[in-house]
Amino acid sequence: MFQINDNYQKLPGSYLFSTIAKKVAAYTEANPDRKLIRLGIGDVTQPLAPAIIEAMHKAVDEMAAAETFRGYAPDLGYEFLRNAIAENDYKARGCDIGADEIFVSDGAKSDSANIQEIFAQDNRIAVCDPVYPVYVDSNVMAGRTGTYNPDTQMWSDVIYMPCTKENGFVPDFPKEAPDMIYLCLPNNPTGTTVTKAQLQAWVDYANKVGAVIIYDGAYEAYISESDVAHTIYECEGARTCAIELKSFSKNAGFTGVRLGYAVVPKELKCGEVSLHGMWARRHGTKFNGAPYIIQRAGEAVYSDAGKAQLKDQVAYYMKNATAIKEGLQAAGYEVFGGVNAPYIWLKTPGHMTSWEFFDYLLAQANVVGTPGSGFGPSGEGYFRLTAFGSYENTLAALERIKSL
Amino acid sequence: MFQINDNYQKLPGSYLFSTIAKKVAAYTEANPDRKLIRLGIGDVTQPLAPAIIEAMHKAVDEMAAAETFRGYAPDLGYEFLRNAIAENDYKARGCDIGADEIFVSDGAKSDSANIQEIFAQDNRIAVCDPVYPVYVDSNVMAGRTGTYNPDTQMWSDVIYMPCTKENGFVPDFPKEAPDMIYLCLPNNPTGTTVTKAQLQAWVDYANKVGAVIIYDGAYEAYISESDVAHTIYECEGARTCAIELKSFSKNAGFTGVRLGYAVVPKELKCGEVSLHGMWARRHGTKFNGAPYIIQRAGEAVYSDAGKAQLKDQVAYYMKNATAIKEGLQAAGYEVFGGVNAPYIWLKTPGHMTSWEFFDYLLAQANVVGTPGSGFGPSGEGYFRLTAFGSYENTLAALERIKSL
Repeated sequence: MFQINDNYQKLPGSYLFSTIAKKVAAYTEANPDRKLIRLGIGDVTQPLAPAIIEAMHKAVDEMAAAETFRGYAPDLGYEFLRNAIAENDYKARGCDIGADEIFVSDGAKSDSANIQEIFAQDNRIAVCDPVYPVYVDSNVMAGRTGTYNPDTQMWSDVIYMPCTKENGFVPDFPKEAPDMIYLCLPNNPTGTTVTKAQLQAWVDYANKVGAVIIYDGAYEAYISESDVAHTIYECEGARTCAIELKSFSKNAGFTGVRLGYAVVPKELKCGEVSLHGMWARRHGTKFNGAPYIIQRAGEAVYSDAGKAQLKDQVAYYMKNATAIKEGLQAAGYEVFGGVNAPYIWLKTPGHMTSWEFFDYLLAQANVVGTPGSGFGPSGEGYFRLTAFGSYENTLAALERIKSL
Repeated sequence: MFQINDNYQKLPGSYLFSTIAKKVAAYTEANPDRKLIRLGIGDVTQPLAPAIIEAMHKAVDEMAAAETFRGYAPDLGYEFLRNAIAENDYKARGCDIGADEIFVSDGAKSDSANIQEIFAQDNRIAVCDPVYPVYVDSNVMAGRTGTYNPDTQMWSDVIYMPCTKENGFVPDFPKEAPDMIYLCLPNNPTGTTVTKAQLQAWVDYANKVGAVIIYDGAYEAYISESDVAHTIYECEGARTCAIELKSFSKNAGFTGVRLGYAVVPKELKCGEVSLHGMWARRHGTKFNGAPYIIQRAGEAVYSDAGKAQLKDQVAYYMKNATAIKEGLQAAGYEVFGGVNAPYIWLKTPGHMTSWEFFDYLLAQANVVGTPGSGFGPSGEGYFRLTAFGSYENTLAALERIKSL
């Protein structure tokens, strides 16, 4: 008789955003006349930029004629896209990353969930707390996290690095050395980040203890301060310890388009074994490339027109971030993030728990946010709002919150 | 110090099609004047059907306006696509599969590689021999296959079910009961299939021994004989033992578009645990949906215009299959498949090994095929040609082979 992967049974409850969706659906059904404003899930709302639309129409037309039709894509992604990424995201910043170290994927969520597959079962992972749930849950499914304690909401074999207002949301080096360190900077959910010097210290630490850093740079486009690194490869020594994951979801609005990439430098090795070779094998065996049309859309992100249009799009969302941050501060809330990231992380008022504030905000202001505790125990008492709504909705939500 | 997943080190050589690509590249570089005809990898060559192109243009335009823009897709796929699949691929054939049992993905390769994740580490897998390499390699990576014997080209913990001309390419029930049985029907690489009665016997067997069948129906559109099942759910009892994987690559030319789906019936359980729930959790945690534009393309496959156009496309490829089959038979080759599938499986002449015949065909006829031994030990002495070329190229390749 076949048996199942028992690790799935260890997963508590369901995925954070599914739970929110269910609560919202129940509220909407009970109150069909209320107009909700959603500043919860990190989904974008602005349409795709004209340069991207144009590139996709052109690619669709190519698929309509035998001479220009494209079948299976190259395993690692089309060269036109990998070259554009290497040139713009790395060479232009003085980082020595080759196009052949870039693996195009269907998005950073998949990559961040799949990357653990190439590591040993008994590696010890370290995560920031709060954290994007996928890092932990994918390791739970792989049996790498030990047992779950519902009281502490912690896994026995996971090293948690609390990020709270007490340490300025900058994680301390853990007491016991981890094997794999997940860092998302600028951070989801807190909207905060670290300086380049602080990131360099993490790279030095990883090289010292022999850990690999899984660096999620999904929000890089929102960096506004000059002492923040745009890629971990700006740090010396990152080529021997870091894998970088990038998304097109937030800089180009590709949440429903699906495109991302992973950088695995060739110097990153375990003994003689190159992780680059392992990820190439994983990609070639278990994935069949991102759609041609979507890879052309990705290329357009790096065109002159695309860059200009997307700069405006990011500025649009950051105007929301500033409005939320300043509006909430004026209303007396304690607020973090929103400077180098499209997320605002607020302290819940009156010692409410995160879910209490979620229910309160949903019922009283008809605004949907994300409970900080859904991202980990140290997120308790915090709450995430996103800047990805329309400007009008963002202002309307703020008015509702202020009048509570 | 972090450690790697050692199972990757067990994988012999590189992925079959990568090896072929390297050999072809080397030959082309040494002989730049020769014009190769590729009947090797199962990639399609006909452009996308007009109904699909039209649907994609429309969807691209929707992404250009805030009112119609689509961000993150629902975890399981858009209802418009899941309803179309349930209606056309199942209800129309009298099969009781609900839209909520369908999980839209980025293709059957990903699904067939990922599906093993929800099963226990020590489950015993059974595969046909020869077999699509992804089924075995994904289990190797997961540590489920034991040790590799380079002499026999077999894994110690895999149950091989030889499919050769001696048993008419219909696998016998294995001596020891497996936990997971991979069946690809109509079959890649042999191009053969089984009758509905023979498939029913497999369903009965799986229910009897408590095995789950991973049923890959990627080539279903090519079925021409009436006693062949179009889905495993035509068989009684399949809802308690079978997961079906479907692709849009071969019926609609989506090899570079990327779309597929998995069916996990709600009755499929291990004890009290529903595999449907597990796959939903896996989907929600490690995947973020197929692109909206691509899901609209998939919907168009089921439109009246789409159906008519794709019927012609399949007929075009099957004309190639018939030409290859009959041409090779006339030239004295022993040939199988090509009736319910776009693959022709031939016995290599003069006791050549599969790779000897590959090199011979490449050098002497400048035709690229796929060595049968690349699909498993029982594929030795066989060779795969595909019907996915243009009709002109197919005839030209045949002439070259006949004149050898």
